Amino acid sequence: MNDPMKLFLTVDAGGTSTRALVHDAEGTCSGYAVAGGGNPTASGVERVANAMRSAAADALDQAGVEPEEVGHALAAMAGSAVGLTGVERGLRQLGVSAPLHLGSDLEAMFFAGTPQLSGAALVSGTGAAAIVVRDGVTAARSDGRGWLLGDDGSGYWIARRVVRAVAADLDGRGPKTSLTDALLPAAGVEGDRSTDKDVLLDQLVANLYAIPTPGIARFAPLAFDHAADDETARSIIEAAAIALADTVTALPAPDKDAPLVVGGSVLFHQNGLRSTVTELLRARGWHGPVLPIADGTLGAVSMNLRSAGVAVCPGLHEHARISLDAIRFRG
Amino acid sequence: MNDPMKLFLTVDAGGTSTRALVHDAEGTCSGYAVAGGGNPTASGVERVANAMRSAAADALDQAGVEPEEVGHALAAMAGSAVGLTGVERGLRQLGVSAPLHLGSDLEAMFFAGTPQLSGAALVSGTGAAAIVVRDGVTAARSDGRGWLLGDDGSGYWIARRVVRAVAADLDGRGPKTSLTDALLPAAGVEGDRSTDKDVLLDQLVANLYAIPTPGIARFAPLAFDHAADDETARSIIEAAAIALADTVTALPAPDKDAPLVVGGSVLFHQNGLRSTVTELLRARGWHGPVLPIADGTLGAVSMNLRSAGVAVCPGLHEHARISLDAIRFRG
Repeated sequence: MNDPMKLFLTVDAGGTSTRALVHDAEGTCSGYAVAGGGNPTASGVERVANAMRSAAADALDQAGVEPEEVGHALAAMAGSAVGLTGVERGLRQLGVSAPLHLGSDLEAMFFAGTPQLSGAALVSGTGAAAIVVRDGVTAARSDGRGWLLGDDGSGYWIARRVVRAVAADLDGRGPKTSLTDALLPAAGVEGDRSTDKDVLLDQLVANLYAIPTPGIARFAPLAFDHAADDETARSIIEAAAIALADTVTALPAPDKDAPLVVGGSVLFHQNGLRSTVTELLRARGWHGPVLPIADGTLGAVSMNLRSAGVAVCPGLHEHARISLDAIRFRG
Repeated sequence: MNDPMKLFLTVDAGGTSTRALVHDAEGTCSGYAVAGGGNPTASGVERVANAMRSAAADALDQAGVEPEEVGHALAAMAGSAVGLTGVERGLRQLGVSAPLHLGSDLEAMFFAGTPQLSGAALVSGTGAAAIVVRDGVTAARSDGRGWLLGDDGSGYWIARRVVRAVAADLDGRGPKTSLTDALLPAAGVEGDRSTDKDVLLDQLVANLYAIPTPGIARFAPLAFDHAADDETARSIIEAAAIALADTVTALPAPDKDAPLVVGGSVLFHQNGLRSTVTELLRARGWHGPVLPIADGTLGAVSMNLRSAGVAVCPGLHEHARISLDAIRFRG
């Protein structure tokens, strides 16, 4: 099945950003580009499709590859079925005629962390979810139900608690928190605690409600910045860690000795949260290796290669990882 | 200032519905109509203005009153400043040329419950807020910051906990709750607990994310329906009661012997919640009369009369209340 003359175009769409990569059957990368994020449920199919097309065009350009040289295209994203039409139309507009495979963004996270075909993954970025993978496919899923119905422990979930704690602080309905002094300037509110609280809150309302949901996730880092010396911030992070551990614990019949891949923009960048979640899971009998990853791009590469008939052995996985890191961090 | 030849058009816009009333300087009502709800922050100014125009047109029609016979117009609504232009344009389109006064929806709630000029009001409908009124105007406010930043104990707040508890139950991340069997059919989800959980959750995600925020507040009654025999539902209602009492307690320097008006669609219809909130406030030293009201329409009438120079004595307030009830409930 593998046509060594043809190149691979791999797209990985997350809530925070969309990444596109051009590579060959050996996992050697020649073009890489990033565009905005989103998922079809929260952001609308068109926005996701536009981000994918933009990233793919830039990656092909960087690689100096013509669209018709692409033989294998795969897009990993949330809500795959919803997005197929938009993504496919976008690729066709670019001139890519290769068959398009769609994959799950959560599977891409898992395969980014390991060449193995079974284990589990826990993701916390803008959203949050966990899956069990068995023989290369998702066997079960927990959470990932979006900002309204779930995503416990996600960036949105944390940021929502931050902004509500600040509103309650200003209103005198909740405890004083240093998150307030941090959020007001970050949210473009003019004034400080000496300003009339209704003036501050009216600005906060105007500015935060203007951000399309779930965009307030951008304020999640404030909770981490203040967790060391603010009780409100610390309790938010502790609750996030417990929620994420609970999301993993709810997975049915996992192999607790298999790899557990942990990633997403929140879990990857916040080492303290990752450590706490790991400790909680160790106490619940998870003894397999915990493998942190930044995003699912390498996993989407694995999935694209495998769907073209390429066996992704540990050596190939490692080569692709090094090549991806090189093109990412050294241009 | 009062021109007895001219009639009064009073509009009261809440998150759940918009009410318009035609009455005279004695508080005798001749036309009443209801349209959809909304507030400028959550629903957009245009939608609020359209609902107001529709209700006002119907009320004038029912009263057999020509728009030019209206001498005094007042609209009570959330976020007054935001809505002025839209509401005024709507009234002018109807042919009403009388000066338009804008009032706060929360003040309308207060004045619906009492002819007195000082006291406090607690409202829980789609949103939730409390105010202190002194000498006829709002002296301080607590909460009412909308679905993202506050509204603790509101219909949206309760319903959000309901839908999240159901998602967690189905996912195995949270306790089993009878709210699940109640919400699934109410949200148009086909299947029951014997159906694959991801099939149920995918439908729940599709159906609930399609409801414009904060429309899920319509599911708040499920929590009350199940509070007697379901621990999850009971804990949601208990937390709502505490949140609402906290919102009142955060008001600065209230007169705890003055009237406390409690209303909004949630607090008015849910007697158990109203009793619990009252008990909590009694324990915190609130000893004044607690006066339940359904909505702020009568208060908006009071405000319209007063802004025309009419003194609203207890007798006039009571007459207007009886006349409003008569036109509402007996057509």
